Amino acid sequence: MIDRLMERIEQLGAPVIVGLDPTPEVVPEKMFEDSAKSFGSSPEAAAFALMKFNREIIDAVAGVVPAVKPNIAFFERYGLDGLRAYIMTIEYAMGRGLMVIGDVKRGDIGSTAAAYAGHIEPAPLFGRKFEIWNEDAVTLNPYLGSDSIEPFLKVLKERDKGIFILVKTSNEGSADIQDLCVKSENGEAPLYEHVAGLVSKWGDDKGLMGERGYSKVCAVAGATHPDIGARLRGLMPHTFFLVPGYGAQGAGAGDIKHFFDKKGRGAIVNSSRGIIGAWKAEGKGAGHVGKAARKAAQRMIEEIGAVL
Amino acid sequence: MIDRLMERIEQLGAPVIVGLDPTPEVVPEKMFEDSAKSFGSSPEAAAFALMKFNREIIDAVAGVVPAVKPNIAFFERYGLDGLRAYIMTIEYAMGRGLMVIGDVKRGDIGSTAAAYAGHIEPAPLFGRKFEIWNEDAVTLNPYLGSDSIEPFLKVLKERDKGIFILVKTSNEGSADIQDLCVKSENGEAPLYEHVAGLVSKWGDDKGLMGERGYSKVCAVAGATHPDIGARLRGLMPHTFFLVPGYGAQGAGAGDIKHFFDKKGRGAIVNSSRGIIGAWKAEGKGAGHVGKAARKAAQRMIEEIGAVL
Repeated sequence: MIDRLMERIEQLGAPVIVGLDPTPEVVPEKMFEDSAKSFGSSPEAAAFALMKFNREIIDAVAGVVPAVKPNIAFFERYGLDGLRAYIMTIEYAMGRGLMVIGDVKRGDIGSTAAAYAGHIEPAPLFGRKFEIWNEDAVTLNPYLGSDSIEPFLKVLKERDKGIFILVKTSNEGSADIQDLCVKSENGEAPLYEHVAGLVSKWGDDKGLMGERGYSKVCAVAGATHPDIGARLRGLMPHTFFLVPGYGAQGAGAGDIKHFFDKKGRGAIVNSSRGIIGAWKAEGKGAGHVGKAARKAAQRMIEEIGAVL
Repeated sequence: MIDRLMERIEQLGAPVIVGLDPTPEVVPEKMFEDSAKSFGSSPEAAAFALMKFNREIIDAVAGVVPAVKPNIAFFERYGLDGLRAYIMTIEYAMGRGLMVIGDVKRGDIGSTAAAYAGHIEPAPLFGRKFEIWNEDAVTLNPYLGSDSIEPFLKVLKERDKGIFILVKTSNEGSADIQDLCVKSENGEAPLYEHVAGLVSKWGDDKGLMGERGYSKVCAVAGATHPDIGARLRGLMPHTFFLVPGYGAQGAGAGDIKHFFDKKGRGAIVNSSRGIIGAWKAEGKGAGHVGKAARKAAQRMIEEIGAVL
C-alpha cells in the first residue's frame, strides 16, 4: 500500500488526497431533490445523492490526485443505505484508479479490534473469504493501546494494506487530551509525541516497511499545527503522514512543508470542503461540482508544489 | 436515559448488562449451517445466524437484566448484512423491554462527530426525521477532545439518550496510553484520571443531570483494574459507570464493588462471553444457548448482589 501510494504521488506530482465528506452543506440541494424523485423522501434517496455527488468528484479528480478519503461517519448517518453508498464509493474510486483511505477512526480491545480489521481483510465464512469493505487503508484511534492495533499489524504483514493512526488531530479540541504534558523516563513531552513514539515503534518491522523507507503503519497529524510538523517528522523518520486541515480548516501550503522529508516525500495532505465544496464557494451551481473540484485540487497541488 | 436505566436496575436488583459480542467462537456452528441452508454460504447467512443467536440470548435475559450492549464491530465485520442484524438486534431487544447501549466507540472532530451523533438522534431529511440507529446510549472515544463530544451533549440535552465515554478500558494494552503520567497544575496523575475529570465536567450540567444524582454523560471503566474503581468513584461522584471485564476477562465480584457508590448504585457491570458463551463453557449444545445465558446472568447478579 505505502509503496503504491508513494509511487502514485510521484507520478502525479501530487501529495494531495481529497476528503469525501458529503455533508448536506456541500451536496447540492438539487441532487437530493432529483434523488427523491426516484426513491421518495427516504434515506435511500439521500444515500443515492451522496453517491452521485462522490461520483462527480471522483470522475473529476481521477488522474489528478492519487487517492480519496471518504469519512464513513457521513454515510453511517443514513444507516444501511448510507453505508451502501460508502462501499459503492470505494469501489467506484478504485475503478477509476484512485486509492482509498477509509476514514473510520475505529479502535477497540483485542478480539473486537480483530473484527474491525475486517475493513482491510476478507471475512472468513463457510470456508470461503468475503472481501466486504476493502479500503486500501483505514484510520485508527490509538487510545486503547497496542492490543487495539495488533490485529491490524497482523493483516498488514500479509496484505497490501495500510493503517493511519491518529497522533495529533486537526481540531481545536485535540489539545484537551493530545497536548497534555506526559512525564516519562525520557523526560516531559506532549502526549501526542508519546503516541508518535508508539506508532513509530509499531511500524518499525521489516515485514511492514516499504521499499521507499516508509512503513505501512502511518500517522495522522493535523496541518493546523505547523510547528508540530518538523518535530514529528524528526521523531518519526519512517512514518508516512496523512495531514488533514488544509484549506477550509485554516492551514496553508506554508504550514505543511515540515511534515515532508527533505526529498519532499513522506506525507499526503488532505482537503475536504476546500475541494468538494469549491463549486459553492465559487457561487456556482450544481452543474459545476466536478469542474470546480478539479480546479481546486490542481490549485492545491500547485500551492504545495511551490513550497516543497 | 440514566434515570430509566437506574430505575430498571433497581426494579430487577441487577446492575448487570449483557454484552452481545457474537463472535464465531460463541455462536454455535449449527446456527451458521442452518442459516446457510436458507441463504447460501453468504454474509447474509452469517448475519442471520448472529441475529438468531442474539434473539435467543435476548429472550433468555429479558426480565433478568435491564440492558444489553451489542458491539457493532462484530456486525460491521459482515458489512451491510451484519449491520442490518445490529439494527434488528437493537429493535428486538427494545421490543423485549431491554435498554440498549451500542458499543460503537466512535469519535471524530466537530462536524463529523455531529454525523456520528446520528446514532442517538434522527437524521433530518427532506423536511422529515428518520430514526435510524436509535440506541439508548452509545460508547465514545475521547482522544479527539471536547469538540468530538459536544454534538452528543447537544443531543442529550434534548433527548432521553446517554453516552459512555472511555476513561479506562479493560484490556492490558490500555496501559500504553491511558496510564501515562500526566503533569498539570493539579500535580501528577495518570492520563485516565485527567480524562475522568473531563468526562465529569462535560456531564456536570443541569440539563444533563438525572433525578437520581447521575449524569447522562457516563464513563467506561474496566473491572480488570479494581484499585482504580474507588479512585474514579471518588473523582466522579455524578458519573455512572459501565464496567466491562467481568468473567471471561478475569474480574470477579470483589473487583467491582468500589465502582459503586455507598448505596450500591452508580454502575452497571458488563459480561459478554461469560454469559453468551456459557452454553459452550458448560459443554452444552446449541439448544442450550438461552438457558445457559440466563443461568449465567442470574449467577452473576447473585455474585454482585452479595458484595454490594
